[in-house]
Amino acid sequence: MTLDIRNLDACDPLRDRRALFEIPAGLTYLDGNSLGPLTIAAKARLRSAAEHEWGRGLIASWNDADWIRLPAIAGAKIARVIGAEADEVIVCDSVSVNLFKLAAALKRSTPAAQFAIDAAEFPTDIYILDGLSSLLGERLRAGRELPPGPVILVKSLVDFRTGAVADIANAEAEVRSAGGAIIWDLSHAAGVLDVRIKESGARFAVGCGYKFLNGGPGAPAFVYARRDASGLSQPISGWMGHARPFDFAGGYVPAEGAARFAAGTPPILSLCALDAALDAFDGVDPADVETKARRLGDLFLERTEGLGLRTISPQSGRRGGQVSLVHEQGYAVMQALIARGVVGDFRPPDIMRFGFSPLFLRYADVASAADALKLVLSTEEWRDQRFSMRRLVT
Amino acid sequence: MTLDIRNLDACDPLRDRRALFEIPAGLTYLDGNSLGPLTIAAKARLRSAAEHEWGRGLIASWNDADWIRLPAIAGAKIARVIGAEADEVIVCDSVSVNLFKLAAALKRSTPAAQFAIDAAEFPTDIYILDGLSSLLGERLRAGRELPPGPVILVKSLVDFRTGAVADIANAEAEVRSAGGAIIWDLSHAAGVLDVRIKESGARFAVGCGYKFLNGGPGAPAFVYARRDASGLSQPISGWMGHARPFDFAGGYVPAEGAARFAAGTPPILSLCALDAALDAFDGVDPADVETKARRLGDLFLERTEGLGLRTISPQSGRRGGQVSLVHEQGYAVMQALIARGVVGDFRPPDIMRFGFSPLFLRYADVASAADALKLVLSTEEWRDQRFSMRRLVT
Repeated sequence: MTLDIRNLDACDPLRDRRALFEIPAGLTYLDGNSLGPLTIAAKARLRSAAEHEWGRGLIASWNDADWIRLPAIAGAKIARVIGAEADEVIVCDSVSVNLFKLAAALKRSTPAAQFAIDAAEFPTDIYILDGLSSLLGERLRAGRELPPGPVILVKSLVDFRTGAVADIANAEAEVRSAGGAIIWDLSHAAGVLDVRIKESGARFAVGCGYKFLNGGPGAPAFVYARRDASGLSQPISGWMGHARPFDFAGGYVPAEGAARFAAGTPPILSLCALDAALDAFDGVDPADVETKARRLGDLFLERTEGLGLRTISPQSGRRGGQVSLVHEQGYAVMQALIARGVVGDFRPPDIMRFGFSPLFLRYADVASAADALKLVLSTEEWRDQRFSMRRLVT
Repeated sequence: MTLDIRNLDACDPLRDRRALFEIPAGLTYLDGNSLGPLTIAAKARLRSAAEHEWGRGLIASWNDADWIRLPAIAGAKIARVIGAEADEVIVCDSVSVNLFKLAAALKRSTPAAQFAIDAAEFPTDIYILDGLSSLLGERLRAGRELPPGPVILVKSLVDFRTGAVADIANAEAEVRSAGGAIIWDLSHAAGVLDVRIKESGARFAVGCGYKFLNGGPGAPAFVYARRDASGLSQPISGWMGHARPFDFAGGYVPAEGAARFAAGTPPILSLCALDAALDAFDGVDPADVETKARRLGDLFLERTEGLGLRTISPQSGRRGGQVSLVHEQGYAVMQALIARGVVGDFRPPDIMRFGFSPLFLRYADVASAADALKLVLSTEEWRDQRFSMRRLVT
């Protein structure tokens, strides 16, 4: 290992964070953009939530362990990470369901607005808008161009394929000038970029708890609704979004702020893991996170230059926490790399994604991952038949 | 303890089940209708899911630990408990969200049908239909009488206040003859009644994982869609309901059967707890469960006769797994009872609910709970000021 890599790690303001994670020995995990790793805090909290709170406290834990406020408590922690006020974020449901709620709420407040989404967006975001459009008797046309007039645009802040970062302020100005609104999907941004969501002028967003926020497999997602725009009425009006759910009153009175975007009873065990995982961001400056993510990505690109791989990721300043490299046999190459203990993932048709989670990765990890990729390509070991077998989830 | 109580426990075909649960010593837990207790299997599974599957296996566990099939695997276990085919049940989201999906899907297939629900139904069920109606520009009128013409009726199989059981076959005949459909809410029925959902003629249902199914706080819920009626198109069309979610294809192709009612990524940790908890029903005959639940309820009613309490629950044959007793100061009485280690719950304005989960309760537990209630009432210890303090969740 070269001296400058050691130096980068020694001077890293986030160097103490890795100790909070349980990274398996010998593994270089570059897939935190897909599923963040377990933290020691989440492990302990899950044990305590299951064995003490559920096991011993039973129903009383809704009060005694504050389960009832957990969606707001975890929401406030995410708010700090993305740059929102505490009551502007609520943890609930999945990204898909949350997108549905926000899109439907916006449609209700601006019936003339048309749904809009780029055909290259994350598929489930398109599916959800498509399903909602059909329900309302409309037809969704996914495409790069915005239709004329007001739109309800769903847009990822970080593109899942390339890692490219969109410009919130520009997009908001364009869409708002025509009377429309944007729902930002922060799934690949929260926990890796210095999003500053409120400062940027964004009013609505959804995001994922299990990627860079490390909340655990299928962790509950979140909704951000800016305080001055949170008076929307969302249609999946379950009791947890009610102002006083335990009054069992006849009429629906939505809770104040983002809390009205909650619906049914939240999955408390999964929520506890997320809530505990978020403590890894305690005292962390999101600007340091973003800077390190980009430096890690730059280092990886630098060290894999000349291997004949094409990157579809933009330059550092416009890139999120991932670098995407194209190889015709990307699936097999990634499998061979995984066999060498370097875990990234693959997106059809030919994209190898490498995620750079700044809290647990060291510069040295990234350098050795690049070495492994070099080896896999130079020896052509990816041609081994066992690496071409497709698995269900990739 | 009387000899006949001992005898009832000794002859109970479910007597070996209690050992599967972690019931705190000294506690008589009559609130399994609100939150079922922890099982030893769920505890072990959660540790392994968090520490081994997530912690060590990371992203590979979607394949290696079969996370991807877990909604269907747990669904098949619930199917056995409620009397459906394995592929007719899928575990996903919350009851609220699932109700929304089914109601919207049915509305799409029968646009002329009006939503209908009794004003005495569980509040969140009403809120959800209300929210969906507003989204579609209609107005929900909750009431006991069905409107003329086809309806999409949401109906609990077991009433949450009284424990009364509805007649599926009768209701289905009435609603179907007018071209409508019923969505049954099995939340207070699954795991305690011999539902025989398919045999009964019901076509659609939702239900809760955290009550009599013991899946853990806020456990994911389920959807039942009869095979010959599962071709519906539901609007929250997230990628997990897609036939091939990892193709990242542009168009939405719904999965076969009930699986199309899945939406976003499921909360795997909570889902693992539910899946493991369901194994407590392995080899259990649902008819034995129902019979015991009713006998436990009868015993409790018998032993609390003459205490001046009124029951709003029907006779044994038309009652689910709970007995509801009315007392003007029901809240304080229940708190006093809880202080004595007998846990039931309270529903406004004056209803004390006692749930009789047949897998972990003994006849002896129920007899001693009745004794405790007798004591609380005869000594009037519920008048103690500390029992009148309302807690957030009751």
